[in-house]
Amino acid sequence: MMPPRTPGPMKTAADGDLIRRINRHRVLSEIRRRGTVARVDIAAATALSPATVTTVTGELLDAGLIEIAEDEEPAGRGTAALSARGRPRVLLRLNPGACHVAGVKIAMHRVSVWISDFAGNLVRSTVVPVRANRQPPEVVADLVEDALRQACAESRLALAEIAGIGLGVPGFIDFSAGICHWSPVFGEGPVALRALMTERLGRPVFVDNDANLATYAELWRGAGQGHDNFLVVTVEHGVGMGAVVGGQLYRGSKGLGSEFGHTKIERGGAPCRCGQRGCLEAYVADFAILREAGRLLFLDGLALGDLEDPFEVQRGLDRLAEMARAGDAEVRRIHERAGEILGLGIANLINLFDPALVILSGERMQLYEFYERAMLRAARDNVLSAHRDRTPIRVNRWGDEVWAWGAAALALHELHLPPLEARRAV
Amino acid sequence: MMPPRTPGPMKTAADGDLIRRINRHRVLSEIRRRGTVARVDIAAATALSPATVTTVTGELLDAGLIEIAEDEEPAGRGTAALSARGRPRVLLRLNPGACHVAGVKIAMHRVSVWISDFAGNLVRSTVVPVRANRQPPEVVADLVEDALRQACAESRLALAEIAGIGLGVPGFIDFSAGICHWSPVFGEGPVALRALMTERLGRPVFVDNDANLATYAELWRGAGQGHDNFLVVTVEHGVGMGAVVGGQLYRGSKGLGSEFGHTKIERGGAPCRCGQRGCLEAYVADFAILREAGRLLFLDGLALGDLEDPFEVQRGLDRLAEMARAGDAEVRRIHERAGEILGLGIANLINLFDPALVILSGERMQLYEFYERAMLRAARDNVLSAHRDRTPIRVNRWGDEVWAWGAAALALHELHLPPLEARRAV
Repeated sequence: MMPPRTPGPMKTAADGDLIRRINRHRVLSEIRRRGTVARVDIAAATALSPATVTTVTGELLDAGLIEIAEDEEPAGRGTAALSARGRPRVLLRLNPGACHVAGVKIAMHRVSVWISDFAGNLVRSTVVPVRANRQPPEVVADLVEDALRQACAESRLALAEIAGIGLGVPGFIDFSAGICHWSPVFGEGPVALRALMTERLGRPVFVDNDANLATYAELWRGAGQGHDNFLVVTVEHGVGMGAVVGGQLYRGSKGLGSEFGHTKIERGGAPCRCGQRGCLEAYVADFAILREAGRLLFLDGLALGDLEDPFEVQRGLDRLAEMARAGDAEVRRIHERAGEILGLGIANLINLFDPALVILSGERMQLYEFYERAMLRAARDNVLSAHRDRTPIRVNRWGDEVWAWGAAALALHELHLPPLEARRAV
Repeated sequence: MMPPRTPGPMKTAADGDLIRRINRHRVLSEIRRRGTVARVDIAAATALSPATVTTVTGELLDAGLIEIAEDEEPAGRGTAALSARGRPRVLLRLNPGACHVAGVKIAMHRVSVWISDFAGNLVRSTVVPVRANRQPPEVVADLVEDALRQACAESRLALAEIAGIGLGVPGFIDFSAGICHWSPVFGEGPVALRALMTERLGRPVFVDNDANLATYAELWRGAGQGHDNFLVVTVEHGVGMGAVVGGQLYRGSKGLGSEFGHTKIERGGAPCRCGQRGCLEAYVADFAILREAGRLLFLDGLALGDLEDPFEVQRGLDRLAEMARAGDAEVRRIHERAGEILGLGIANLINLFDPALVILSGERMQLYEFYERAMLRAARDNVLSAHRDRTPIRVNRWGDEVWAWGAAALALHELHLPPLEARRAV
């Protein structure tokens, strides 16, 4: 039997609409990625025709999402600034005022809130020092709501004017479900954090692992720009990780993404807070360093109290840093061992992910000088020879901007999902 | 200054051509994925309009790449078989005769060649037992060429009629460059294997890690079908791995992809053939099992010679399996320890990749009964609680089909790259 090969039109309205939305997203992403860019360069990077780019950027200008950059190159400055027809090239960029988003990071010793514009620029930040460890969800929600309302008031914005909120938490987060399975912040898990906060605030909230915020920041503004595959390892109270694969943050099949801190580095090794043994965190996390150094600190006159108390932890780490700087060989060995094990873990990641680079980030980079050499040597010694000296490990020494940018990027990404991703999410 | 917003046409010829090629690839991939499928289901799965699907499938039928399935459902069998207008639904499938491809797997004890059709069906296979360990590249190239020419002759095909060749090798392969950095097959590395074989055979050759062949097979025909993110772990002479991320085989940033066998599972642990310590392979690979069991085998009357000789290795493993089946507790403990360490490594992979499932494959699955329990227990005990009992580990008990399908899939995928991937490759 012959197939009914009705020769239909090549493209229906539905296809046209989908293609238009995909093109719009590609152009917007390219402008976001580049900061300031000419139409001709958008066309080259997206493989769209110049005519299509002109149409799409026209629509985006009309919608107020992008604007003409005031600091465009003056005409006649050189051939690079001129189009083929000799006209000055118009440079486009995101319109910062298109909307505002908020980013929130809950750490064990403070809640930070940032208000950012559509271009990801920081408008206002508020940091509230708290003991956010092992708290009931309602208490944490109170802290977040109060800090957010304060930041909005200081920015002269109503909460209703915030288009979306990116919320970063340490621990095991199911991004898709918005559930926090476990976090040192909460007494117990799981906590349906996205539902809780969305109801509280009446705005779209996106809950993510804090390491993923740092990864978004690196992808949009940091050393990850222009790389399709790279990893971010965060060393804070614990050890976190985010992976970019194919230019996108990797979410995994259940929304749990990549968890690095509890991969095993030593069979039957040191006990970890998670109840298992030989986890990377059991050698590298704050509690592991302080456990190892407890006797030395005591001999030095510092008796630490509850190691779950973030201020006690900070007191201990600060003293250890002082002792290391003063040349205490035993304290240095503790840092070096942590560095060696972190390097071994990073070598495993390089073997498994073949990333273009690994970026180290997080608050504990303040101690980097003490473990840098041991870490780099262990990483180098334990990767495949084909990787050796070909996968740079870089340290991000930013301060809190990394979280502010990351939280803004999370909220903006989720609010402006590419059409095919949004389809899948429905 | 106002931007020169020339209202151009929405789509130029160049865009139309790109869109047409993308649509063609999407339709062809969907047919390949489904085997036999109606146009309406292609439209639903690809988000293309029914009219576009009709046009594209018409072009593919004209080009001879697809055909009407003879075994279509008879009209009137039920409403499911009828279109909205009551016509019987026409089922489409790949045209097996559109072209032929060859797959080759070089193992240490044999070279296998398969000729497959455009639908991936096996036409002919040839297995040549050889000692392909530590051989010069030219010797291996001779073996491959001879086996391939024989398989072609048996299939009444000229070598020139083979559209492309997928070549799988154990070891560290840079797929993008076609270079084998290290393999037990070759005496030393690196070997520019793709260039060598392409010149020899005068046909397009694609060189890949053998674990990636198994991964392609699972993606196209096996338990991985329909999953966006899953892992394949192969246990053969060594331990390999392939990762599917976002529905695509993961290649990494340098084409080296995922290397699992030499991730470290024990700091400063057992020495590995690679020169490092504590690698997973140092506990799980053939050489590790035989090293551990050497004394027992000797006491049992078997003195093994060169452990680099694949036939000696097989002799030792067969005897160990006999002893385990006869209830030898010490031999069982050796297998169980290997299983426990493999399970620990798989737990690390689950924590890092959050896969929908893990598929175990490869020749050593013949010993699976001896380490199954220890492996599953270790995997379960060492994953995050949020993963526990949610990430199935399945065993593929296929024989050589897995490599035949995988090698065909590799060749067909590379010959029919999606348009945007092909652009990037240029």
